[in-house]
Amino acid sequence: MNEHALFSLLDLSGTFVFAISGAAAARQRGLDLFGIIAIAFVTACGGGIARDICIGATPPAALDNWRYLVLAAAGALAAIGADAWLNRLNQPVLLFDALGLSIFTVAGTQKVLFSGHNAEAAIVLGMISAVGGGMARDVLLNRLPVILQREIYASAALAGAAFVIAAHHFGWSAAWSTWPGIAACFGLRYLALRYRWNLPRFNPRQGGATP
Amino acid sequence: MNEHALFSLLDLSGTFVFAISGAAAARQRGLDLFGIIAIAFVTACGGGIARDICIGATPPAALDNWRYLVLAAAGALAAIGADAWLNRLNQPVLLFDALGLSIFTVAGTQKVLFSGHNAEAAIVLGMISAVGGGMARDVLLNRLPVILQREIYASAALAGAAFVIAAHHFGWSAAWSTWPGIAACFGLRYLALRYRWNLPRFNPRQGGATP
Amino acid sequence: MNEHALFSLLDLSGTFVFAISGAAAARQRGLDLFGIIAIAFVTACGGGIARDICIGATPPAALDNWRYLVLAAAGALAAIGADAWLNRLNQPVLLFDALGLSIFTVAGTQKVLFSGHNAEAAIVLGMISAVGGGMARDVLLNRLPVILQREIYASAALAGAAFVIAAHHFGWSAAWSTWPGIAACFGLRYLALRYRWNLPRFNPRQGGATP
Repeated sequence: MNEHALFSLLDLSGTFVFAISGAAAARQRGLDLFGIIAIAFVTACGGGIARDICIGATPPAALDNWRYLVLAAAGALAAIGADAWLNRLNQPVLLFDALGLSIFTVAGTQKVLFSGHNAEAAIVLGMISAVGGGMARDVLLNRLPVILQREIYASAALAGAAFVIAAHHFGWSAAWSTWPGIAACFGLRYLALRYRWNLPRFNPRQGGATP
Repeated sequence: MNEHALFSLLDLSGTFVFAISGAAAARQRGLDLFGIIAIAFVTACGGGIARDICIGATPPAALDNWRYLVLAAAGALAAIGADAWLNRLNQPVLLFDALGLSIFTVAGTQKVLFSGHNAEAAIVLGMISAVGGGMARDVLLNRLPVILQREIYASAALAGAAFVIAAHHFGWSAAWSTWPGIAACFGLRYLALRYRWNLPRFNPRQGGATP
Repeated sequence: MNEHALFSLLDLSGTFVFAISGAAAARQRGLDLFGIIAIAFVTACGGGIARDICIGATPPAALDNWRYLVLAAAGALAAIGADAWLNRLNQPVLLFDALGLSIFTVAGTQKVLFSGHNAEAAIVLGMISAVGGGMARDVLLNRLPVILQREIYASAALAGAAFVIAAHHFGWSAAWSTWPGIAACFGLRYLALRYRWNLPRFNPRQGGATP
């Protein structure tokens, strides 16, 4: 298996795993079959769609290729059919999710850089590629986005995107930015899960009125 | 009245009816006059704006033509002024809403196809044309989107969009895809309302922690 | 200091003040450091990003220039570090926020007009430039957008945008539309705060089921 095929396989795995996480959350909220598939698609593809719109790459790749829609539906059906099984697999799912996060970050950052945009667009949109779908999922399910309040998640994406941009800046080949970038993001996320690292919070004002 | 004039009339009716549904929901939430008109506009035009952004047709049609903004404001004022009357008219409003859904689905799917995009973009963006405004309304009003949890609604849009794409694939003329497509979507939605059809749901896990 | 430098200074002040308002709200909701900076950036730049996407100006200016991201992060750190100080400064912050609102409205409306779009696009997108970030902040923080329910806020932006468009229509120079436009929006917002003006609301139906 050559490198390109491996990367495609990882990209598809990321889509599938993100779809499962979206479908599981949608099911918990009591959505119907259509709602579950819609949330799975948004979770898996929403970040990439936002990135493509921001760089003017329309229509977004996820709307131009059946592969993503089919994988999102498959992930949704898997989440419905294999609920008990997924519960036992909680740990593997977290690891696959971390892998999806890492791949989407690196692939998204590279797509923006290779389209000729600058480092700021690449770092912000690379992160949005990876975490935008989960944020859209939580907004649609009417809850506070978990990635804004929990563990090192978006920060791991930031580390991965920063690595890719540094590698690009120093003129390393794509292969030398891809795999170490994925490893940086995945490693940070894995360590955060393993040792329960969190970013600092600050005591919210008690009893304050909502502004 | 020729066919084009009839289609325009239906399109405007759909905009007006969707604006009424948005304004009624905004009023119930206690928004002020500006908020009610804003939600009416988002409900009526949000789906089409999202579709146009995704196919790169900027500025979106609803921002380029006063007709839509004026109709949304008129719908909002109608919803404020004729509240008791609207309550008595609940059944007709549901039917007009189903008609708006059908027209927006077919017109949205055709716009994407005729812009040269493929079937996947057309089917997903055709549905978003029709249901995106209602989802944006519910997100802004901070509630779970009703179309993800209730009755056959987005699924009726899916049926209409699929019909239009099949007709396009087989080379039927636009007229032969337009009216039967509207009929398919409207008919399915009407039957779902009449006989209380729903898509399956799945028991959410009881007492599960939010992931 | 010439006019262009003054305008840039005002634009940066607006970004910084909006970032503070976003970060203060995010902190109250218990977000972590990354979440606070993300919400500050969305609040300060979300409206301009939506405007740029709608007129096809990709990538959006806020993603193409480090200045905005750095200012948003600085505003977030200021909000975290100077909490007690900010509470004492509530009145000045409201005034700065009103200034930010006015500048973003006028600059946004002018950008759309100068890109060759029509008056409707300019008025709607000018308002979205100014209030879109605050709406995105509230949607992400899972609460009803305050600008849809409170005081004259978006309506002041409407007045400013309408002034700029009228000035453009009558062929006044940019300087004669810029400063009076800012004054119109700021003045209306200030008076609304000072005398507690509000737009009318309408008794929501009591006990009505959510539609």
